[in-house]
Amino acid sequence: MPWKAPLADMQFVLQHWLRAELAWQAMPPYADIDLDLATQVLEEAARFSEQVLAPLNAPGDRQGCRLDDGDVRTPEGFAAAYRAYVEGGWPALACAPELGGQGLPQVLDAALQEMLFASNHAWAMYTGIAHGAYLCLKTHASDELQARYLPGIVSGETLPTMCLTEPQAGSDLGLLRCRAEPMGDGRYAVTGNKLFISGGDHDLTHDIVHLVLARLTDAPAGSRGLSLLLVPKWLDDGQRNAVYCDGLEHKLGIRGSATCALRFEGASGWLVGQAHGGLAAMFVMMNSARLHVGLQGLAHAQAAWQYASAYAWERRQMNAPGQAKGAADPIHLHPAMRRILLELRVRTEGMRALGYWAAHWLDIADASADLAQRAKASKLAALLTPIIKAVFTDLGFNLASKALQVFGGYGYTCEFAIEQTLRDSRIAMIYEGTNEVQANDLLLRKVLGDGGEGFALLLVELRQETGAGEEGDALRRVCDTLEMVLAKVQLSAANDPEYPYRAAGDFLQLCGTALQAYAWARTCRCIQALPVDAPQRLEKQESARYFFDYLLPDFDRQVAAIDAAAAPLPFIHQPF
Amino acid sequence: MPWKAPLADMQFVLQHWLRAELAWQAMPPYADIDLDLATQVLEEAARFSEQVLAPLNAPGDRQGCRLDDGDVRTPEGFAAAYRAYVEGGWPALACAPELGGQGLPQVLDAALQEMLFASNHAWAMYTGIAHGAYLCLKTHASDELQARYLPGIVSGETLPTMCLTEPQAGSDLGLLRCRAEPMGDGRYAVTGNKLFISGGDHDLTHDIVHLVLARLTDAPAGSRGLSLLLVPKWLDDGQRNAVYCDGLEHKLGIRGSATCALRFEGASGWLVGQAHGGLAAMFVMMNSARLHVGLQGLAHAQAAWQYASAYAWERRQMNAPGQAKGAADPIHLHPAMRRILLELRVRTEGMRALGYWAAHWLDIADASADLAQRAKASKLAALLTPIIKAVFTDLGFNLASKALQVFGGYGYTCEFAIEQTLRDSRIAMIYEGTNEVQANDLLLRKVLGDGGEGFALLLVELRQETGAGEEGDALRRVCDTLEMVLAKVQLSAANDPEYPYRAAGDFLQLCGTALQAYAWARTCRCIQALPVDAPQRLEKQESARYFFDYLLPDFDRQVAAIDAAAAPLPFIHQPF
Repeated sequence: MPWKAPLADMQFVLQHWLRAELAWQAMPPYADIDLDLATQVLEEAARFSEQVLAPLNAPGDRQGCRLDDGDVRTPEGFAAAYRAYVEGGWPALACAPELGGQGLPQVLDAALQEMLFASNHAWAMYTGIAHGAYLCLKTHASDELQARYLPGIVSGETLPTMCLTEPQAGSDLGLLRCRAEPMGDGRYAVTGNKLFISGGDHDLTHDIVHLVLARLTDAPAGSRGLSLLLVPKWLDDGQRNAVYCDGLEHKLGIRGSATCALRFEGASGWLVGQAHGGLAAMFVMMNSARLHVGLQGLAHAQAAWQYASAYAWERRQMNAPGQAKGAADPIHLHPAMRRILLELRVRTEGMRALGYWAAHWLDIADASADLAQRAKASKLAALLTPIIKAVFTDLGFNLASKALQVFGGYGYTCEFAIEQTLRDSRIAMIYEGTNEVQANDLLLRKVLGDGGEGFALLLVELRQETGAGEEGDALRRVCDTLEMVLAKVQLSAANDPEYPYRAAGDFLQLCGTALQAYAWARTCRCIQALPVDAPQRLEKQESARYFFDYLLPDFDRQVAAIDAAAAPLPFIHQPF
Repeated sequence: MPWKAPLADMQFVLQHWLRAELAWQAMPPYADIDLDLATQVLEEAARFSEQVLAPLNAPGDRQGCRLDDGDVRTPEGFAAAYRAYVEGGWPALACAPELGGQGLPQVLDAALQEMLFASNHAWAMYTGIAHGAYLCLKTHASDELQARYLPGIVSGETLPTMCLTEPQAGSDLGLLRCRAEPMGDGRYAVTGNKLFISGGDHDLTHDIVHLVLARLTDAPAGSRGLSLLLVPKWLDDGQRNAVYCDGLEHKLGIRGSATCALRFEGASGWLVGQAHGGLAAMFVMMNSARLHVGLQGLAHAQAAWQYASAYAWERRQMNAPGQAKGAADPIHLHPAMRRILLELRVRTEGMRALGYWAAHWLDIADASADLAQRAKASKLAALLTPIIKAVFTDLGFNLASKALQVFGGYGYTCEFAIEQTLRDSRIAMIYEGTNEVQANDLLLRKVLGDGGEGFALLLVELRQETGAGEEGDALRRVCDTLEMVLAKVQLSAANDPEYPYRAAGDFLQLCGTALQAYAWARTCRCIQALPVDAPQRLEKQESARYFFDYLLPDFDRQVAAIDAAAAPLPFIHQPF
């Protein structure tokens, strides 16, 4: 069945969960935006995703990309879809009006991204980095560089890339070797090999703007010696710059996305930001880019829920317990399938609320009239980002696998979309910082690094929903436990420097479960605004019950894991 | 790196964990087998798997099978490998000597299967069903049919298939439509469509013997109206029988395995066993076949552990906490990677002990001189089978995914074997009864169905290892809890017929964790027989600690899940 955008739930999150219209009134740039406009934008994005992108998803996967005499050819239809995307003004959605953007809040961009990734992850890889590159250049590039390159990125005439990884340097950017030598005229000659560059070459736009981490001649060793350079595919004199695509990766999934090995051979580049300030320049785009990857997890979970529920309605096998004897029942009536389907729905809708909430904090951090709110929002967004990136992408893959189980043998064949969802979803656990890197970032830097200050802010937010009902009580217990856990973690870390590295993964998952408890407690409050007999209200109520009854017990397991990590962790003495 | 067979641990399980030589002395058919012979067999199997099968694994996946004018062509080298397999006498390994077999115990066949599946799952699909078909025919077929077809299966001249699934009938065999009409001369004309038939056609052997579930003309509806028919590809007059391969499935993995849609058009067949007794005839092979699938989970976990540990030795990224400052460390020193690698090793070795233990119970059930032991062994094997099938295959896939994480971006490319391991491993959660079907089989039929008698036998076995040390204490707590849980489950099931269907999946996982606790408690006892300074002894000790410290806390989560399932389970009112 064709993919459909989850508009009703998106609107529920904006209208009832975030009360976005009211919130936007406190943000001067968004003060005029109302829900009607937001709905129009979402409906347009849904139409584009459903009608243009979704039909290209399976064919693009089968066809993949190819390297044709040094030039990358994307799957049939991808370039035309990109032209439609540009004509629709989508690249400019969340860019500033003074730069040609539409000036809409990031929370709407989050909904757009969810739809792009759900309908065609591979295609959306080409556009996915654009907003981050826009932010990076807007914040760090010189006026000349901005004037030359920002308008093209905002309009979509040009697509950017992020060139970080090298064969020997993935998680460890300190090992990067790519170098940049001053050419005396303000330009730098960039030389080196970059690996796994998404959209490193393609036929969607004429020019491509590479943002490249490299070392200047006098750079110190390690990650503090990195500079960011802008290296275009084409120079202004019409010459091809010395950037070459040496090969495309054959991958488990997102096969329509060109993952390139790039060779820079003294290519002309311009410094973005300060010399040796490359990491700082990159960090600007980090929260936005990592949130986008988290939204990929949501997108795949949504697609998986959609595919599995439709199939479970059609497929009949065996008499389900409690149903009238006779013909085989639709499998959604069987308890084991109900559990999978409920988990798919509950996790998906919980992630959506939390993901948009994080985007909303980014908007507050950017645009609130209240400077104290901005500072708080910025801290919260920084804290939420690694949790959302890792927890959502783990869930995206794991839920795709659970959904596949609903299809039985059919799910293992390439005829059903769920097979591709499983493959596509797996990458998000790896790129933009592996989920293990996210866990260390969360616990070591964001939680222990600031003495628990940001974490305390998050707890204050969570406690807002501990007011009423069983769900509120459960969330209160979660918050109390989190506080205790943090104190324990701080103590253990002080005595045993390796401890937080052992506990980081579990701590992140624990936070993820706490956030989901928050999401569903808040949902229980928000649905009071819906008509008593609205099907959405009943479904949300049942979803919340399922979460608290069947899924929240994960929390205690994760707390136990935090304790367990106090035990020594053996070394591996030899490989197999 | 090339795949290598885990001989050292296999030998540990046979020699120290099972004390197999002693046990075989109590089984008349195996009384002469000693560890030296067993070792020779395993070493030969390792050589074949490493040198013949493993090199065909990735190429076979890339090439896949094709349908050439109605005939299936397997990947290059598959047929030659099969000839080598036949020449090595491997099909006959666990067959009776009076039928031309080698008369070795199933536990050695389990080790053989592990190696075949780890080195080349797709190839091993062609041979994987042969032993089950052998058992089925030996037990149920007429003397004439046995005389005509068993020798070919034992020698490997012929390969069998199992034809169960039809497009509308997967988990629910009651919905099968394929029919068989008597032809008056003892033959039946078999007509219908079968789906997902592994090795339904291929070029490994001239003849193929299909075992087909179908309905006789006078059959009652539902699963009690099924009969088993033997339908050869070639008739004895040299004519091709009316069985046609209409298509091959394009699949996520095991792409070198021909998954066929077969059309029977009045094909000549012979009844195996009683009319309408098809299910009983199938059940003979069930425990053996499901154990084999469980061993696929072990095989993939082993391969994943092997690939990931080798890569973690080569790859250097960042300074690991507690290591000398300076150059980047091999990633196996980083705590997050150590946790993944330890889990891979611990789960793999625990599964191996348990999987071979189950095969050993099958041997006792078949061959013990003590009839009471046989009866007990048979019950235990029946109880262990669904747990092993589901828990091992879940682990095979989940551990492949964890291992893939160790490779970072490289793991997502087709250049590293782990990518194929992830894809290949996923099927085992589905076929030979989905893991949801296994859970219902365990709780509804095997545990509640016999009033907990078989389960009590299992607890007696588990309690044998509660004697000593912290591990013994932990296992005792596990056993006590299991007893309590069972009582609770029995009570809830009596009051609420849907309850066991809601709890079945968690109950199965709970049993899986208990079995792993048993495996590691028993290992702690068995390693006392190793020299104090043997590296294997230290590693086992550390693995056991890792299991009890870091992994056993799963048990409490699973107990909580059993309680949680008392909560009502909402219905899905509409698909997305």
